[in-house]
This record gives sequence, structure tokens and C-alpha cells, in this order.
Amino acid sequence: MEKLLTQAQALKQEIIARRRDLHKHPESAWTEFRTASIVAQELTQLGFEVLVGDQVIVASEMMGVPDALTLQKCQERALKEGADPKWVDKMQGGKTGVMGVMKFSKPGKTVAIRVDMDANDVEESKDAQHQPNQEGFASVHANVMHACGHDGHTAMGLAIAKLIAENKDLYAGTIKLIFQPGEEGVRGAKAMVASGIVDDVDYLFGMHVGFNANRNDTIVCMTDGFLATTKLDARFKGLSSHAGSAPHEGKNALLAAAQASISMHSIARHGQGASRINVGVLQAGTGRNVLPDVAVVKLETRGANTEINEYMMVEAKRMIQAAAMMYDVEVEVEEMGGAPSCSLDREMGEEIQKILLASGYFAPEGVIKEVSLGASEDCSYFMQRVQEKGGKAVYMMAGSELKAGHHNSKFDFNEETLVRGAASLALLAEKYTNR
Amino acid sequence: MEKLLTQAQALKQEIIARRRDLHKHPESAWTEFRTASIVAQELTQLGFEVLVGDQVIVASEMMGVPDALTLQKCQERALKEGADPKWVDKMQGGKTGVMGVMKFSKPGKTVAIRVDMDANDVEESKDAQHQPNQEGFASVHANVMHACGHDGHTAMGLAIAKLIAENKDLYAGTIKLIFQPGEEGVRGAKAMVASGIVDDVDYLFGMHVGFNANRNDTIVCMTDGFLATTKLDARFKGLSSHAGSAPHEGKNALLAAAQASISMHSIARHGQGASRINVGVLQAGTGRNVLPDVAVVKLETRGANTEINEYMMVEAKRMIQAAAMMYDVEVEVEEMGGAPSCSLDREMGEEIQKILLASGYFAPEGVIKEVSLGASEDCSYFMQRVQEKGGKAVYMMAGSELKAGHHNSKFDFNEETLVRGAASLALLAEKYTNR
Amino acid sequence: MEKLLTQAQALKQEIIARRRDLHKHPESAWTEFRTASIVAQELTQLGFEVLVGDQVIVASEMMGVPDALTLQKCQERALKEGADPKWVDKMQGGKTGVMGVMKFSKPGKTVAIRVDMDANDVEESKDAQHQPNQEGFASVHANVMHACGHDGHTAMGLAIAKLIAENKDLYAGTIKLIFQPGEEGVRGAKAMVASGIVDDVDYLFGMHVGFNANRNDTIVCMTDGFLATTKLDARFKGLSSHAGSAPHEGKNALLAAAQASISMHSIARHGQGASRINVGVLQAGTGRNVLPDVAVVKLETRGANTEINEYMMVEAKRMIQAAAMMYDVEVEVEEMGGAPSCSLDREMGEEIQKILLASGYFAPEGVIKEVSLGASEDCSYFMQRVQEKGGKAVYMMAGSELKAGHHNSKFDFNEETLVRGAASLALLAEKYTNR
Amino acid sequence: MEKLLTQAQALKQEIIARRRDLHKHPESAWTEFRTASIVAQELTQLGFEVLVGDQVIVASEMMGVPDALTLQKCQERALKEGADPKWVDKMQGGKTGVMGVMKFSKPGKTVAIRVDMDANDVEESKDAQHQPNQEGFASVHANVMHACGHDGHTAMGLAIAKLIAENKDLYAGTIKLIFQPGEEGVRGAKAMVASGIVDDVDYLFGMHVGFNANRNDTIVCMTDGFLATTKLDARFKGLSSHAGSAPHEGKNALLAAAQASISMHSIARHGQGASRINVGVLQAGTGRNVLPDVAVVKLETRGANTEINEYMMVEAKRMIQAAAMMYDVEVEVEEMGGAPSCSLDREMGEEIQKILLASGYFAPEGVIKEVSLGASEDCSYFMQRVQEKGGKAVYMMAGSELKAGHHNSKFDFNEETLVRGAASLALLAEKYTNR
Repeated sequence: MEKLLTQAQALKQEIIARRRDLHKHPESAWTEFRTASIVAQELTQLGFEVLVGDQVIVASEMMGVPDALTLQKCQERALKEGADPKWVDKMQGGKTGVMGVMKFSKPGKTVAIRVDMDANDVEESKDAQHQPNQEGFASVHANVMHACGHDGHTAMGLAIAKLIAENKDLYAGTIKLIFQPGEEGVRGAKAMVASGIVDDVDYLFGMHVGFNANRNDTIVCMTDGFLATTKLDARFKGLSSHAGSAPHEGKNALLAAAQASISMHSIARHGQGASRINVGVLQAGTGRNVLPDVAVVKLETRGANTEINEYMMVEAKRMIQAAAMMYDVEVEVEEMGGAPSCSLDREMGEEIQKILLASGYFAPEGVIKEVSLGASEDCSYFMQRVQEKGGKAVYMMAGSELKAGHHNSKFDFNEETLVRGAASLALLAEKYTNR
Repeated sequence: MEKLLTQAQALKQEIIARRRDLHKHPESAWTEFRTASIVAQELTQLGFEVLVGDQVIVASEMMGVPDALTLQKCQERALKEGADPKWVDKMQGGKTGVMGVMKFSKPGKTVAIRVDMDANDVEESKDAQHQPNQEGFASVHANVMHACGHDGHTAMGLAIAKLIAENKDLYAGTIKLIFQPGEEGVRGAKAMVASGIVDDVDYLFGMHVGFNANRNDTIVCMTDGFLATTKLDARFKGLSSHAGSAPHEGKNALLAAAQASISMHSIARHGQGASRINVGVLQAGTGRNVLPDVAVVKLETRGANTEINEYMMVEAKRMIQAAAMMYDVEVEVEEMGGAPSCSLDREMGEEIQKILLASGYFAPEGVIKEVSLGASEDCSYFMQRVQEKGGKAVYMMAGSELKAGHHNSKFDFNEETLVRGAASLALLAEKYTNR
Repeated sequence: MEKLLTQAQALKQEIIARRRDLHKHPESAWTEFRTASIVAQELTQLGFEVLVGDQVIVASEMMGVPDALTLQKCQERALKEGADPKWVDKMQGGKTGVMGVMKFSKPGKTVAIRVDMDANDVEESKDAQHQPNQEGFASVHANVMHACGHDGHTAMGLAIAKLIAENKDLYAGTIKLIFQPGEEGVRGAKAMVASGIVDDVDYLFGMHVGFNANRNDTIVCMTDGFLATTKLDARFKGLSSHAGSAPHEGKNALLAAAQASISMHSIARHGQGASRINVGVLQAGTGRNVLPDVAVVKLETRGANTEINEYMMVEAKRMIQAAAMMYDVEVEVEEMGGAPSCSLDREMGEEIQKILLASGYFAPEGVIKEVSLGASEDCSYFMQRVQEKGGKAVYMMAGSELKAGHHNSKFDFNEETLVRGAASLALLAEKYTNR
Repeated sequence: MEKLLTQAQALKQEIIARRRDLHKHPESAWTEFRTASIVAQELTQLGFEVLVGDQVIVASEMMGVPDALTLQKCQERALKEGADPKWVDKMQGGKTGVMGVMKFSKPGKTVAIRVDMDANDVEESKDAQHQPNQEGFASVHANVMHACGHDGHTAMGLAIAKLIAENKDLYAGTIKLIFQPGEEGVRGAKAMVASGIVDDVDYLFGMHVGFNANRNDTIVCMTDGFLATTKLDARFKGLSSHAGSAPHEGKNALLAAAQASISMHSIARHGQGASRINVGVLQAGTGRNVLPDVAVVKLETRGANTEINEYMMVEAKRMIQAAAMMYDVEVEVEEMGGAPSCSLDREMGEEIQKILLASGYFAPEGVIKEVSLGASEDCSYFMQRVQEKGGKAVYMMAGSELKAGHHNSKFDFNEETLVRGAASLALLAEKYTNR
């Protein structure tokens, strides 16, 4: 047991360097061409069988994909920043998912570890006290920043790959390391799951740094309270007219969007658990004296469980249509993202607690049995599928003091966290492949 | 000319007595069984051919008809108050319209005079100063009152009938005296017009006491500015549920009705002229802690012309449907009344002005050429049809000082007005049948 | 222990007769003149010190009291139906609360049992299959019915009084039997609590038949999940005007009420637990063609705890004011009822479970430890006050198969339930006064 | 009379060159640094006394002024494009108004001619058929274009100045040539009028090319039907929160803005004439999953007269405040522009008709007595002030076939129009100074 932790600690500088390189070159959902290429290359070198693009992504299930021009620009930027064209070429259309598979001589279980790679649409703080500014690894991309720690997740995933590759004799069965694009906006998991890559998985582990485990040297064995969610965009199209002389000739898209926003907030509360709605963005109209003919509304629904979220989403969609009908305008609704809730496998979580307590990687009080998320994470797609197929899944957290909250422009975490996180997952993979 | 005025003045006490009897026994739209029976009986006695019920009303075009039980009760009340069962029997279902026709030996034009007979849903004032209370002819029917002067119109119409019957040699062609039910709420004219009774009319006259001619001893030769209007009821049907434990199981009719009301008031103003909307009544829900499953909304649209009213009505109807869709409830919309705008025949009005100035019935300053109504009157249905068929039509006013405005519980007018109003219309009928 | 059950069973016919008499003469909130008089008389006869009217009610804390005329009529009805004028006279203004106090020679604790007496604003079913119709004890009062079982509660309360009076030697300390008016609409408890009558209580018991214990021969030892609630009426006053010619001169109370209703349903969900809003009734306007100047809205807020309900109420009140400001109308908001949530004393509930299991009154599976209410009950006012003063309190349920749900016009329960309910509470009073 | 027309025709190429230079370098409201400098320089050379900046603008009355950075950039651009720093320096803060005054030896009246100089926030069409593209004078400024003809107005104003300077003997009294900034958005007139520059004016003339006189070789003697208008921006400020876990901690600026928009469209129609409201732009929120804390709404009210517009504005402002109160957010409302309606001086218009008919500048059918604007123009501020001080004022139009409507990206007019427009105003100035 101690061997893995010792080896992980020896990788510390490599992990940190990797994380900082990724932090400096953040890529948002479906544009992780450089990140995914690095992952693919590294996994290949370590002896993993590597699957990318269409092998791990079902295009029709991708949600919230940027337009072609944006994809093109991001692809060019990735190549300019050193991405291997061989890999990028396989990721056309934003199919930036990667999976590394390693089979071991001993028969055993199939274990999957899922990490996410994408950055946020946030402009990184210019504050001189912000660590990435002090150490020179702040984002060089305008309005994109790793403000949720997925740079760390990716670096940790590659460290796990190395620990496994260096200790092949410890493992049995099959290990699948899954690097997911587009977790922000819960856009990417569905399309990877649809490819069938976790259909044969016996045990799946997800892990996040920080979050509800905001203390160094801690680890959370399982997480509950995932809110199911759906992300929708509604685009209204009316008809403009002169607001002074011919208001009756227009079709008012602004009022339709405003009405939809208000009405959706009046959806009846669900009696069985938390139901949420948020219209986060409304943009409408072109000029003060023109009856407004265009409007867009960006919203999300959530529910304590998938059924409640479904209720909210169905109500929201109908209300959007009704608001369009109200003002006689057209509307298109697009699903930009989504995630189910999930039920954790409590027994598996309790076993993990025992394994980690026995490992000595953390002080006893550092091994936290369970926390509640109270937010959404599309790892739930992976967990749900594994469970449907008879496997088990948990979502863990690697504790870290945060400099600022997730998605904040000054977000930063303790890089030491990655070392023990990697060792822990490598250890769990050993235990679970050998069952 | 003077003869008719002299004869009219001789009828003064009879006219007043008639008006007071009708005032004491007011009957609202489609329940004018007693009033119409009196009219039919009187016209018959005067030698007119009398048409009632199906002969002058197309049932399918009747709007805003009370329910069967109400009709039944009003019919019984009428019989109890002296209505002739022979006539009442022909008015089943509220078909309380009457027309008296008299043909003369001299060839000539067909002239129609239209009066309305119905009372308002108003409780008459108990104020001792109110003339009907002083003189003992206040309404004996709860919540029904002649607060618009139609009692006077009916009495005047019968006086005109008598003047004509007594002076058959003066007249030529054909005279049609039309007694319309249900002008309040603009419900009755459409069904009478649909029967075809004015299709052969060359000249049609409507007349109202008071209104925009609020001065004794005056007469208005023509009226413009009729607002086209539509009266709608919308009944929403949802699903109730426990507001505490299962709000998501309900379908909220109250919110649908509230939303419809607000949205309709946001219909874009019409750039070509006055457009109006009024939701006058909203009633919803059964109890505070029950998600409300029923709601009703009573509204009207208006427009400076029929096209603008049509625009408002189409918008309103769509918005009602959209509000129902918004809250997933059902809705039924019923047209309870309506009237087009109308274009007056200005040349005819100018001729009338000349005739009345020449008559000496009024001082020259008492003969007012034209006023604007700024409200709705379904005489416009008659006028429109006559005009479509090649005839001409005007709407006149008989000036009278009012004690209180129309529809007020203290409304009262100067009964003298009826004498000169009758003489004037008898005179005009003479002139126009002889053209 | 068995003695009390045996005695209770001997009272069965008396209990049922009492309940049926009360069922036949139902009285709604603050008008329980006959019911309360019977209670006062009976308690007096049994040797209790009896307090009524101002002794147990603080007038200024009474919520949702009917108007003076209604009170007067109900008082007269009660007298006509046999209420003792001596007691009724002390209940002027609807102060129909009663408390019977008995002190025992042995020193001991003070135990209170609270029952409620009022009926619902429901018209009882005429269905021949409905038991009260078959047996001739259906309500003789139009639109009032015991549809929640409070008739049973009152009968059971008097049976408990008799059991105690017949077994004085078993008891110690003091027993307070509290008969509350106006539980429906959560209107009455606050005013009784304010009088200080439970300030010295060590243990308080509330009990309801049926509800979440919809099975015969069961008893629930404690109830959690009381939703805090507030009942509000908002009365809007605007200015009417002619909808056709002068809409700009009006102030639209209907739109203000509609807007308030919709806006309140958009109050942001509370992240810490269930939050509810229901506008159950909206009535506005006088006529279709009059800009509406009056409107009333009846609503309730609820929350998983008192703080969340407070949040909802503050938001709702501000939104009502804002809606009035929106349309420049005046508004008055009145609190018509309310109840806090409450925290049950779990240890006390567990003790009760032991006592009842030991009693043999129920089969072991009939003693249900705990259920969740998911609704509101103003017994929470009593419980909260007792707890604030250092005492303990639970709310129990007496299981009964129901013929139809609470507040339904066919509601009916199994009268046997009352026997074991009475015996159980008499037993618990014995145990708790002797602690 | 013919002399002025002949001289104007001789200036044709100069006028066209001037107009094209201005068209190529368009400047929007309050940034007309280059345009105003050219005007000031030219007027100085022609012998006018020239007033600019604080002499003709009251800073506190300027509406809708761009921010300091924008002003700075536009000032630099103007200097780069040849504006004289001497003049620009006097126009700090956007005070780009100019007035040229010339006094004549003969005593006479004071006549003012007002033209406007600003361009629109429109990107000029790239269509090769668009004349400015063919002839190489299309806008070189992104998103700014002379799409309403004010380039022509300015060129015409300078031509009038030249005609007057060359014919000093013809004139009497005083002539004031007023070059106004910021007519678009009706932002500039109020601040110029406030400086008092037209307080002594006897006769004021405004003129627009095209508009409701869309035919070459015509002139309109007076214009009625100016809609009074007010332009408002409302900025809402709430509080963001996590939409999933703490919606109750936020204050929703998006819903407040949406509600304000809908409510304002429900302002009751004014019974006395056209009333308009348009929320043309709504922008709110920062991200889908964040409760939105910021929103801005851009709107305008209009009325058939100043009183009706005032009614709309007062209602709109109160509703904005109420919407902010509804969602407990703060709001700031700023007036960005505005114009009163105006009453034209009909006698003056009829005199002008006679003068122009007698002039022979146009065919008789080309001299159009009157049209109705049906829109807003802040020349009404000048007209109103002149009338208040006892003078008279009219707003004329110079007919021109348009290639596309005003404010369209392909807008273009017939440059010949400017010649006869200049001659006509020079002629009228002669007639009216000599009265």
C-alpha cells in the first residue's frame, strides 16, 4: 500500500508541472484539442490502448457544441500550442474524449476512473496575489480559465496512469481511464456513455478536488445529493416594426422572452423534493425605438431526482411555447446540457472508507465517509449506466483548501491534493480489479 | 308638419304612463317577455302586421343568452305581471324581438325605425330624491333597472306607431317599426338582422335619448364614432390539488386567467386608431388552501373601426389560448356580444337637418348636426346591413338633461323629450317614405 | 392499565351519540357556541374547573374572525339548538374556547390534552350511501360539515374527561383539557396560547383521527413535518372608469391582483427546504365594460420550518405592495390565520411508544412510532409554547379507515377509533402526571 | 426671387461635395466634433458671429451623452480626420452645437433656421449598387452612418449661410443659423434651447429631407402630428446567488426587468389620443446557472401630445419602481432623450405656401401645404420655446425620392433636393426678416 503513495510523491513535480501547463492553456467544452492530445499521447507512451473521437463519443448525443467557426479556431490554436495533429485530426467536430484501456494478465474486474478536462468561460484574475500570476502559469486565453480544478483532474488522471503502468503486477482484470470533455454545462458525459464504453464496467470512480471537501489532507469516500439538471436555450423570432407609427405590425420577441422567464419561475413547486428553475440570461431587441424581433433566453432546471427535473423541464418547455404563442412569435428550444441525479452505492462507499482508513494515506479524521453535493455533475451519467448494467459507482472528493470558490476568477487549490488523490485511486483500482 | 307634433303632444300622458309602467317592470337582455308582449299587442291593435320570435330572430345568432332556468323564471314573472301568454309563447328561448309592419296605398320607400327595449343589471337607487321613487314607478325587480332610457325608447316607439296609424294618408310605401331586445352587452341586433328583416329597407333610423345630447329641446341629426366591439367570456378548467403537499399535481386555472388578463392588456396599440381592451371581471378558485381549478374572465375589445376591433379580438383570443397552454389548463371562449363600427350617411344626415330646421319642432340652435358617440351600439348591425343592401341609415339622439349618467343607479331623463322625439321620427318617416 | 380501556369501552355508545349530535350541528371557526357550551356544561358536571371566553382567549390575537352579523346569527342558531345562554353569553365575539382544569391530591406534573372543535365550510354529501345520511345525523346546517373529524375529537375529549373524573385516585398534579375553536384555517390556537393557559404545562398531547394513520386499530406516537403557514387576504382598491372612452382615468385593481398572484408564484424556491405559495381565490371587477376598481386575493404561504415560511410571507407581502404600486391602487393585507412549524420531542414520543406497547391496547404492529404530517396544524402554537417554557409536547394520531379524505363532502371515519384514542390519552395522562 | 435660386444652383457641386465629405465621416450624437468644427470654420469665414460649446449648450440638460472614453476616442478621431483643434477644444464633453449669427443694417425680425448634424448607429450597406459605394463616399466609421440625411441638412445649412452672406442687402434684422447635435434619440435640442439662443426669435424654420415627402421637386410648407416622446434607460441591480443551492439568497434583476417590460406594455390606453410604449432592448444576467443580478431595459414612451406622453412616462416610471420593489432589487432610471409634441402655426404655414407658390421654385403641385409626421423630432423643443416667447415656428420638408427608408443601411436621397431646399429657406429668411 505504501508503495503507491511513495511513488506518487515521487511524481509530485511532474504532476504539478502538468497541471500548470494545462492551467496556462485552458480549453472549454468540446475544444479540449490540446489537452486531449496530450492525454492521448501520454497514455499511448505508457502502454495503454487509446481510444478517441468517434470511438468514445456518439456525435448525436453531444450537447451544447460550439459552432463550426469556434471549433476551427480552437483547433488551430491547439495546433499552434503544440498539439499533435495526428490526434487532433481524430477529434473533428469537438469529439475530444479520450479513454486509455489496460488489460492485466490476472483475471479480475473491470474498473473505470473518470476525470474531466475542460475549463470555464471565466476571465482569470489579474490580481498579483493570485498564485498563477505569481508563478507565471495564468491562462493565456482570453475569457477561458481553469476555475474548477479540471486541470488538476487531468494531471491526476495521467499520474494514475503512470502508477498503474509502473505496477502492472499489482493489477488484475481491466482498467479504463476515461478523460471526459465538456463537464461544465454538463454537456459531455452523455455522448461518451452512449458509445458504450462503460457498459462492461464493474466499478466506476469519479473524483473532484475541493468542492464540499474544502480542507487539506482529507478525502471523501462517497457523495450524495446530485441534482438532476437540464440546460436549455430558447431563441425567439418575431417581427420588427416602427414603435411609434405601427406597433400593431410587429411581433414582440422581447415580451415573449420576458413572459417565458416570469412564467417559468411560477412553475408549481414539486411536493416530493427540491425543484429549481433559473433563467440566467435574457437578451432581446436591437434598438429603443424598434419593436424587438429577436430574443434569447438561457435557463436551467434542476430536481432532487431525475423525475422532478423532468417535471420541471416539461413545464418549462411548454411555457416557452406558450409565451411564444402569446406574442405570436416563433421559438426554437435547444438542449445545451443535462445530467441525471444518481443513487450512490452506499456499501461500496463504506468499503472504500475501510480501505482508505487502513491505507494510512490520511489521518483517520481525514477520511470522510459522505457529503452531499447539492449541485449537478454529469458523472452521474456514467454512474447511472454502470449501475443499470449491474456495476457499482461512487463519486469521491479530494479535500483541498481553496483560495476562492469554484468558478471564481481567483479560484485556486492546493496542488499537494493531487498526489494523495492519485495514490488513493491507484490503490482503489488495485483493490477493486482484484476482487 | 305641425299636425304630427300637436298629435304627439296630445299623447304625452299616455307616453309617460307607458314609460313608467315599463320602468317599473324592467327586463334585461333576452328576457323582455312582458315588454315585447305589450309592444306586440299594441301594434296589433293599431293595425300593424306583427312579427315576433322566429320570424324576426335567428336563434343561432343570439349572443349572451341567459341559461334556461333564468329564461324560465323571467317568463313566469312576465306572465304574473300581465304578459299575454299568446305572445310569450312565441318568444320561447328569449326570442323577444318584435316588428310591426304597415304598408300604405301610395307607392313609396321602405323606412325602418329601430328602438331597443332592454334594461340594465343595475339595482335602482333607493334615494328618496330619485324621481321614480318619488312618483312610485321605481323598479320592482331586484338588480334590474332601466338605467339607459330604453323604457323611453319603447314608449316612444309605440307613440310613433300611433301617430302613423292615425295618419295613414300621409305615408307611402312601407314602414317597419323594429323593437330590439338585448342592446345592453350588444347582444341582440345581430340575430334580428340575420333574419333579413331590414334587407329591403331604404332608410333606417335609430335614436337614443340623452347620451351626448345632454340638453333639453335638442335633437342630433346623425352620430359618428361608433366603436366596434366584441364581448368575450373565457372559462378556464384546470385540476385542483393540495397546495401544501402536492402543488405539482394541480393545473392552475387562476394563474392562467390572471396571465390572460395581464397579457391582453399588453396587446400592441394599433397605429391606425383607438384600440381598447378591458378585462372587467375575473373570478377564480374555491378556497385558500386548494390549488385553484376554475376561473372565468369577462372581457371586451373595442376598435375605432371594425378592422381594429378584429385585430384586438384575434390577439385577445390567441392570448387566452396561450395562457391556458402556459398553465396546461383547458379554456372555452364564448362570444357574448358584439357590434361593428359603422359609417354614417352624411348626406342623409344633412337632409334630416334641413327637414327638422324647417319643421319648427325645435329652435334652430336645438337642431344639432352631428356628434361623436365614442362608445358602442349594436344599431350599427342594422345600419351596416341597410348600407350593404344599398339603403341609407343614421343614428340620431333626442336631447335630454340627465339626472345622472347612463347606467348609473340614479339615471333619469326628461320625459318631455319623448314627445318631440316621436313627432320628429314620425315626420321623417313621412318624408322618407314619400321620396 | 386495562381498567381505563374497559371503562372507555363502556362509554362507547355515549361517545358515538355525542359525536353524532355534534356532527349534526356543525359550527365553523369562532362560531362553536353550541359545541363549546356543551363542553363547558359537561366538564362542569364532571367536576372540572371550567374557563371560557376571555379567560382562555386573547381577543387581539384571534385571526380570521367572521363579521359581527355572522357571529350574531350563529349565536342565535346555537341558542335555538339548545345551547345554554349562560355559557354562550361568556363567548361574545366568538371567544368559544374552553378549558377544564382538575387538580389532584397527589403532587405531580401538569399535563394538557388539546382537542379542536370546529367544522368545515363544506356542504355535506347527499349520497344515500354516506353513513350520516343512512343513520340520520348528517349536518342540518347549509355549507357547514364536520369533514375533518373534530366532532370526534370533541366527543373523545369529553370521554377522556369522564375517564379522569371517574379515576381521580390514579392521577397526580394537574390535568388541563383544552377545547380549541378555529383550527380550520389555523386561526384559533394563537389566541388561546396568548392567554397563558399552557405556560405551566409539563407535557402536552395533541391528537387527530385518521390523516396519515389511515388504518383501524393503530395509533401514532408522534408526528413530525408540520409545515409552518400564514394565511393572508389582500384587498385592492382602485378607481373605475369607462373602459371605452377613458381607460386612462381608471386605476386597475384586477390587474394588480392578477399581477400579485403571478408574481408571488415566482418567489424563489428556498434552498433549505420546502417552500409553498398558493393563491387560492381571486375575485375582481364588477362588469365587463367597467375598468375594475376592486379585487380580493386569498392566499397562503407555507414552509418546512417557521423561518422558511417567514421568508415566503415577507416576499409575498412585499410583492402584494409592489403589485398595488404597479397599478397605482391601494391595498390592505390582513393575516387570516397562521401556525408555526414545530419540533417534536422525540424522547417523549419514544416513551409513549413503550407505554402503549406495554398497555396492550393495540397489537404491537398497531403502535406506529412516527409519521410525517406534510401539512399545517396550529396545535404547533401550543407545542412551541410548552417547549419554550421547558415542557415537552407531541402530536399523536388515532388510526382510522376513512370513507373519503379529510375535507371531502363524504368524509367519515370509524367511530371505534374514539374509544381506544380516549383510553390511550387517559392512560398517558396518568403516566405523565405521576412522573 | 430667382436670383437666390440661380445662386443656389451655382453652389450645387459645392453642396454635394460637402454632403459627401460629411457622409464619409459620420459622427453620432454628441460626437460631431469634426462636423461642428467644419461648420464653425465655414460660418466664421462667411462673416457670421459663431457661438459653440457652452455658449449654445447647457451641459446639465444634455441627454444620452456617451461616456467619457467614447467622447475622448471620437474627439481624437475628429482631429485625425482634420478637425481644427481650436474649435474642438471648445466642444469638450460633447458640446458640439454651433450657431452662426448675422445682423443686418436694416431693422427687422429675428429669424432662425435649425438643422441637425448627427449620424445613426447603423453599419452602412456594402452593396455595390449603393450610391455611396459607387462614388466612394461611404462611411469610413464602423457602425456609424448618415442614414437619415443630416449630412444633407448640414450641407444645406452651410449653403444657406453662403447665400445670405452673398446677399446681405436683401436681409434685415437678425438671422440665426442653428446646427444641432444629437437629434437621433431626441437628445440635443433641449440643451440648446435651455441656453436661451431662440428666446428672441420671431420666426423659426426646421426642415427635413425626404420623410413624408418622398417625391423629387416638392416641398412641404408645414408638418403636424409630432409625437411627444421620452427615452428612458432603467438599470436594475440585484444580488447573484447559486441557482441550485441558494436561490432564496439572490435578488433577481432579470425578473424585475422582464416584469417592468411586460407591465409597461399594459399601461391603460389614453382615451384622448395615441399613446405608445416600446421596450426596445432588454439585457440581463451573466450565466445560465447564476441567479441574475444585473439587467438593463431601454424604452421609449410617446403620446399624441405632450400631456399624453407625460401620462405614459409617469406610469412607466412608477411601474419600473414597482417591478424593482417586486423583486427587491435597486433600479436607476435615466432620461436619455425626449421631445415635446408641438402645435404648428397654421397661418405661418399658409403664408409660406403663398410665398413658395409665387417663387416659381416648384411647380404648383410641388408645393404641398401640410403633412403629418407620426413620429418624433426634437425640433419641437425649439418650436415650443419660440411659441412660448411669442414667436412662430414651422417644420418643413424638402421632397426627395429615397433609395431606402430612413435609418435603413441603404438609405440615400436625391442630392438635387438640397439646392432648392437651400434656396427656399434663404428666400423665406429674406421675407420674414423684412416683415
